[in-house]
Amino acid sequence: MIRVLVIGQGMVGTYFALGLERLKSGEMKPYGVPLADLELKYSPRDINLVASIDVDARKVNRSVYQVAREVYGFERIPSTLKHVRIYPGIELGLMRDLNVPIISLDSELPLRGCVDKLCDYYSSFRPDVILDLSTTQYAAPLQELSVLEERIRSNRIEGLVPSQLYAYAALKYAEGGRTVAYVNLIPVPLANSSAFVSAAKEVSSLILGDDAATGATPLTADILEHLKERNKFVRSIVQLNIGGNMDFLSLLDRERNLAKEHTKSSIVSDILGYEAPHYIRPTGYLKPLGDKKVVAIHIEYESFLGVTDEIFVNMRINDSPALAGYLIDLTRLAKLALERGFSGTIYEINAFYMKHPGPPGSPNLSRILAYTRLLQFIERNLIA
Amino acid sequence: MIRVLVIGQGMVGTYFALGLERLKSGEMKPYGVPLADLELKYSPRDINLVASIDVDARKVNRSVYQVAREVYGFERIPSTLKHVRIYPGIELGLMRDLNVPIISLDSELPLRGCVDKLCDYYSSFRPDVILDLSTTQYAAPLQELSVLEERIRSNRIEGLVPSQLYAYAALKYAEGGRTVAYVNLIPVPLANSSAFVSAAKEVSSLILGDDAATGATPLTADILEHLKERNKFVRSIVQLNIGGNMDFLSLLDRERNLAKEHTKSSIVSDILGYEAPHYIRPTGYLKPLGDKKVVAIHIEYESFLGVTDEIFVNMRINDSPALAGYLIDLTRLAKLALERGFSGTIYEINAFYMKHPGPPGSPNLSRILAYTRLLQFIERNLIA
Amino acid sequence: MIRVLVIGQGMVGTYFALGLERLKSGEMKPYGVPLADLELKYSPRDINLVASIDVDARKVNRSVYQVAREVYGFERIPSTLKHVRIYPGIELGLMRDLNVPIISLDSELPLRGCVDKLCDYYSSFRPDVILDLSTTQYAAPLQELSVLEERIRSNRIEGLVPSQLYAYAALKYAEGGRTVAYVNLIPVPLANSSAFVSAAKEVSSLILGDDAATGATPLTADILEHLKERNKFVRSIVQLNIGGNMDFLSLLDRERNLAKEHTKSSIVSDILGYEAPHYIRPTGYLKPLGDKKVVAIHIEYESFLGVTDEIFVNMRINDSPALAGYLIDLTRLAKLALERGFSGTIYEINAFYMKHPGPPGSPNLSRILAYTRLLQFIERNLIA
Amino acid sequence: MIRVLVIGQGMVGTYFALGLERLKSGEMKPYGVPLADLELKYSPRDINLVASIDVDARKVNRSVYQVAREVYGFERIPSTLKHVRIYPGIELGLMRDLNVPIISLDSELPLRGCVDKLCDYYSSFRPDVILDLSTTQYAAPLQELSVLEERIRSNRIEGLVPSQLYAYAALKYAEGGRTVAYVNLIPVPLANSSAFVSAAKEVSSLILGDDAATGATPLTADILEHLKERNKFVRSIVQLNIGGNMDFLSLLDRERNLAKEHTKSSIVSDILGYEAPHYIRPTGYLKPLGDKKVVAIHIEYESFLGVTDEIFVNMRINDSPALAGYLIDLTRLAKLALERGFSGTIYEINAFYMKHPGPPGSPNLSRILAYTRLLQFIERNLIA
Repeated sequence: MIRVLVIGQGMVGTYFALGLERLKSGEMKPYGVPLADLELKYSPRDINLVASIDVDARKVNRSVYQVAREVYGFERIPSTLKHVRIYPGIELGLMRDLNVPIISLDSELPLRGCVDKLCDYYSSFRPDVILDLSTTQYAAPLQELSVLEERIRSNRIEGLVPSQLYAYAALKYAEGGRTVAYVNLIPVPLANSSAFVSAAKEVSSLILGDDAATGATPLTADILEHLKERNKFVRSIVQLNIGGNMDFLSLLDRERNLAKEHTKSSIVSDILGYEAPHYIRPTGYLKPLGDKKVVAIHIEYESFLGVTDEIFVNMRINDSPALAGYLIDLTRLAKLALERGFSGTIYEINAFYMKHPGPPGSPNLSRILAYTRLLQFIERNLIA
Repeated sequence: MIRVLVIGQGMVGTYFALGLERLKSGEMKPYGVPLADLELKYSPRDINLVASIDVDARKVNRSVYQVAREVYGFERIPSTLKHVRIYPGIELGLMRDLNVPIISLDSELPLRGCVDKLCDYYSSFRPDVILDLSTTQYAAPLQELSVLEERIRSNRIEGLVPSQLYAYAALKYAEGGRTVAYVNLIPVPLANSSAFVSAAKEVSSLILGDDAATGATPLTADILEHLKERNKFVRSIVQLNIGGNMDFLSLLDRERNLAKEHTKSSIVSDILGYEAPHYIRPTGYLKPLGDKKVVAIHIEYESFLGVTDEIFVNMRINDSPALAGYLIDLTRLAKLALERGFSGTIYEINAFYMKHPGPPGSPNLSRILAYTRLLQFIERNLIA
Repeated sequence: MIRVLVIGQGMVGTYFALGLERLKSGEMKPYGVPLADLELKYSPRDINLVASIDVDARKVNRSVYQVAREVYGFERIPSTLKHVRIYPGIELGLMRDLNVPIISLDSELPLRGCVDKLCDYYSSFRPDVILDLSTTQYAAPLQELSVLEERIRSNRIEGLVPSQLYAYAALKYAEGGRTVAYVNLIPVPLANSSAFVSAAKEVSSLILGDDAATGATPLTADILEHLKERNKFVRSIVQLNIGGNMDFLSLLDRERNLAKEHTKSSIVSDILGYEAPHYIRPTGYLKPLGDKKVVAIHIEYESFLGVTDEIFVNMRINDSPALAGYLIDLTRLAKLALERGFSGTIYEINAFYMKHPGPPGSPNLSRILAYTRLLQFIERNLIA
Repeated sequence: MIRVLVIGQGMVGTYFALGLERLKSGEMKPYGVPLADLELKYSPRDINLVASIDVDARKVNRSVYQVAREVYGFERIPSTLKHVRIYPGIELGLMRDLNVPIISLDSELPLRGCVDKLCDYYSSFRPDVILDLSTTQYAAPLQELSVLEERIRSNRIEGLVPSQLYAYAALKYAEGGRTVAYVNLIPVPLANSSAFVSAAKEVSSLILGDDAATGATPLTADILEHLKERNKFVRSIVQLNIGGNMDFLSLLDRERNLAKEHTKSSIVSDILGYEAPHYIRPTGYLKPLGDKKVVAIHIEYESFLGVTDEIFVNMRINDSPALAGYLIDLTRLAKLALERGFSGTIYEINAFYMKHPGPPGSPNLSRILAYTRLLQFIERNLIA
């Protein structure tokens, strides 16, 4: 049995909850679950969603069942989800511009109290795996845990983002003797923070991440690998995408920050071996696109004898279900790895599922190569 | 030093000849040569183009220099190519519909005489590597060499295609004590014919092939691998392409034959593990497109919780230079493999460079995986 | 009130029947009905589907309601469609390769008898408008009606296609004093046959057609017009499409005939004023695409100072509903035109809705220009 | 003879200068000149480029010949361009962020002096037509010319952009008795400023504009018209583009301003008749794309019976030559219109060639309809 707690009951969390129950009842084929055909010790039937955290007032203190039906308009929702409740989380002023009513711990408690409350949740629900699916946030990697602790003590929120506190509380919880895997699916650098990775190691726990690799970027990575293996010289790469969900909306008011802080995607130079000029970034928000995003990729390269070739790719893809499918794998791999004594973080898992695989300084691989390495890692360490 | 003889002095052969000389003189970067950065015993400087064979009356008995300039309109042609002459080859009635004036051995000699003449060429020019770049032909794989020999004896050309005779003559030449690698870049099944592969083995020679994997299919393969590794369920695959060169023209009048004989691309089931419905084939000829072909790919697949995603890919690519770049590698790998005592055929080389990798019954891999295996093979066998 | 009889109860006929009823009940917005916002004398409420003809054994002698539910899997079907029955039509051996069980008049009756039977249908149901939606057929334009009559007399079916008989029977029916508009939505040349157009004129009736302009071709026409108006020099045009419905399946076994007989699309030279090289044709059949077809267009052109631009268009479109929407207009326009005394055919209507607008020799216009002319025609002749 | 003065000797101005000379010498076909086939009183031979203005220190005080060769790398430049000199213009601090060395009038003179200097240029070179091709600027439409005059008097540059001064000086020049057509190809509202249009009227002169309609937007307009005429309900429109020339670079540091001030494109509601959700804007800068920009368009719409269709368009287009081709027309039309006594602005010309056709409050038409109206206008007013 794997006990899972979700942070952020948005589209992805809801697809995950629904899909998990339908997999368990056999109603649905496991399409989109990368390792569905691999015989792991744990199957989807062994995963239990035990609680969820959010700050959206339409969700807090309600059940995942109610959110799925009333906020997202799903039908045929498994009644097991009536028993999974959503608790108030931390927001730190980051949701204000999104025009969403908020119920949060930090509106009532100082940071110290928020962390204590999170520890209480964790201790009550005893998760093996915590999935961080909260709204996209940006932060610099934390160098020392003491910096974070000092800020919590003095209640200084500037520069802090909720996921740092969620993860910190998870480490506190693990100090209590129960190992945990914190899987960070968003861009906040946690598996890319030496401080967090070391701290996790000390409590025999795991931080996997960062930033789930769904959408256009993994495909761009594989196309670049394809070109590199033919020694084509890539002259320019454009990857634009536009969507209509919360994730794209949250980009809008932060574009300025983004422009400055955005850790430039290392995918291009990691794979090609040189820094081909590129423009790879989320482009805009257009409500009617909803959860299906539109992607346009253009790559121009030079081939033998100086001729020029061009590739255009257009996609219309569902991002949230793609990530929800990954979570079925990540939950099982994380639990297995804990059982086998892994701690800190695990590059082989991160490299396939994440855009910025930790630990800090790790390279991006093309996804096909990352997949091969993932299978080898699993075979040697999690199956044998 | 590697002595190379080319069969088919078309666009690809001409790009190869030009590119090779420019690489040797350092005028050009080796873009499009997959293994350019790998330290092999032989570099492009060690490759010598010694002779060429064709049946186009505008080319036969002229130099590669003249053909490059007058038939294809190239400029700045290395004068070394003035010394590479083009000899008449075999046509067997297959070029008639292409509306091209012909000078061929078989218009004057019986099959027996043709083969003898080819053996004479080979013996005079002593190639280490023969590159078969002749016009697309279709044939069933030969089961027994004796069938071919019987036909040659009785001068029965039905069902025979020129490449079978070119390759047969190469084996005869190798019987004379000089090992040779026959690299088949066109769809005629030679590396996929047990008869040819066994016969090559007997004379310590190699047949590599079949059908060079440039163009859209290798990219489609890698995109399918990308989807398979995420366990997406592929519902349909369309891959259309249209071009303006001889290769596309030659498809026109043979579409009927094609429809029947076309060995259905195994790429889909080899990679996905199931037979997703697909329509993958060359579509048409449109002269002004010239050597740049236009490709359109559409893939629809099912992801987690039954949602549907779609990918469109459009490419405008130069096919001939892409293949010419491969030839720089294949020539060097073939020669090295001969020296290390390999004979018959070599799956690891074929799997990356070819659409239908021999020996018979071999699966297609995604190109990225094939590349990894190729590198391992080279490291273990051709470098160490 | 407009009485409509449909020939061919396939996807299009079924979308038309369903959509018409839903428009009448106000359940649905008239999207896809080009002239929905124009005040015409007749609204969709005035259109009555009175009967249907088909040869598919799963449809004949059943109701449109049953076909919609059981053959096409629609839900929420208006019960009014329970009263619209499907009668056996003519097949002339053309459906044999489609692997569909057949019930047809011509399997039991000579041609003469078939025509009489069709006249009986028409006389019983008294249609004002007959919509020909039968499966794609190819035929040469008929020069003289006497040729057709001679063939009917002598029961010689070679070279005949069902639509010629359906239309001929309509003219016979009109001889009885009731004017009728035969609207031909398929490629058989009827509005492009002088014989048919003259005969219709004589009985104060109309033949509109030929070949409904839905799908990629009208958009290609408008893009070409766009380029022509900027005096761009179009170097090549590729338009490929692939689908999974009966229409595409019927192309498969006829590709050979097609290749020969295919009246080359005049759209290119009609619009551009010169014959730009083009490859515009249906490409293939892939079942899972169903009624949604995939289109790829590529256009290359030369602009000022000799620079080259390129456009790729990809579409995923529903062809049948697009045509069904047109039928709401065509039915009303045809009836109005009959009332205003028009006979023969009407170029202004054909030019917007049809790929090969009759009468014979008529040019194709870009659709945007055709639309302007259509509105003028309606305003001057059908509204005022 | 038509005397033309160019403001902004960038890519477009250079393509125009080169193309004009090559058209005059008969070296080049007039592709990309929309009205090339129309018999107007003036042909390209009648157009003379007399002078140019710029602020780029690499261009000022040199000839167009030198700029074409040294700045833009053109070859085979007509020697007539050696005699066309580039004079320093006005910059008002707007080029600072572009990292280009500047020589400008306003670095040495107060605004009053700058205007006087411009009047001197105009008086010396006596242009009939002034083409404003300066770097993209943004400004609010001027309500009263007196506001501008007051600012010039008091030398207050905030809120002013160079084009307002260039145009103002043109009106002063026209006061001297020589009529002039100021053709504004950039987004500054001049033909959309009542103040400028009225002032032009008073001196029997013309202001045509604003913002040349090349690139993706005119094609999007025609595709929307295509859909509207079929009454498709457009659910979302995305139009992204990215390029590598100065125009895209100038967008970079102004994105913030843009976001606020950008007058939302009215193309969507003008053509569709309702405000379909859209995201239409220049997206980014990527140097190696150079003057060829990459465009991606996605349109989703609803058709009959509620089905959903999708169109993707990808383009790789040369923007500068496209606009240069328009200038051949605009110069001739402007001169003809002046001769026929037109003054103020002319909607029929603006509606085809411009993105925001003046006078203020004018609607956008699909380009195909605008073309028809343009031809009618010319026929009735400029030819007859």
